[in-house]
Amino acid sequence: MSDTIFHQILSGDIPCHRVYEDDQVLAFLDVFPLARGHTLVIPKEYAATLDQLSDDASAAIGRVLPRLSRAVMAATGASDFNILQNNGVAAHQVVFYVHFHIIPRFADGSGLGVGWNAGQLDADVGAELAASIVDQL
Amino acid sequence: MSDTIFHQILSGDIPCHRVYEDDQVLAFLDVFPLARGHTLVIPKEYAATLDQLSDDASAAIGRVLPRLSRAVMAATGASDFNILQNNGVAAHQVVFYVHFHIIPRFADGSGLGVGWNAGQLDADVGAELAASIVDQL
Repeated sequence: MSDTIFHQILSGDIPCHRVYEDDQVLAFLDVFPLARGHTLVIPKEYAATLDQLSDDASAAIGRVLPRLSRAVMAATGASDFNILQNNGVAAHQVVFYVHFHIIPRFADGSGLGVGWNAGQLDADVGAELAASIVDQL
Repeated sequence: MSDTIFHQILSGDIPCHRVYEDDQVLAFLDVFPLARGHTLVIPKEYAATLDQLSDDASAAIGRVLPRLSRAVMAATGASDFNILQNNGVAAHQVVFYVHFHIIPRFADGSGLGVGWNAGQLDADVGAELAASIVDQL
């Protein structure tokens, strides 16, 4: 998994529609877009999934998301959008190189389909779970 | 929209199952979880949507996402997960205060429902669109 299509895009072996680049981040159009303006933001540091990415590389992506989102919205006329980042096959990850999606949402229904089957957190269960997450930090 | 439930959580007026806090970020369990361990990460700086958030506040969230993801996965036993951040009613935003979801995905199907109706980007359209996004940066 350490030679993905995003490695090839970063190396220049495969072209992309680049929209932004700095020393830590590259952003380009998704060639299989969910909506007009669907943009991918990747770190130059390689990690397969976000939990394996360095704090600095992840911060560098966080830093550019507002700016890139504004530009994508301005260029496409969208007002609503989703940021999505998938980790693992069960979570719909296809390319095993960390990437954040910026996905505009349009009135024609194009954009990310979101399924939201929420439960309700019991207070005691929540307290125990929060404590066990804190233990892992 | 400038007094949301997340303002009240930050001020302490409403309790939360806190899992992490630093000078720029608060993370706590979602009380209406899509899966066990569903965690919300918010900036202490207020913005309704990500495009309005400062670069620094967004970087601070980016910085802690890998660490928080690792802790949520370790505490719940999940191996796959999604990061989701919604902006605007059409993109499923409910609370108008920027928040990133960390949503574990389990074999029982709990987690984020992802609908993926992708198209294919025409090269000429892509070149023109990328240029218009660059113009907005």
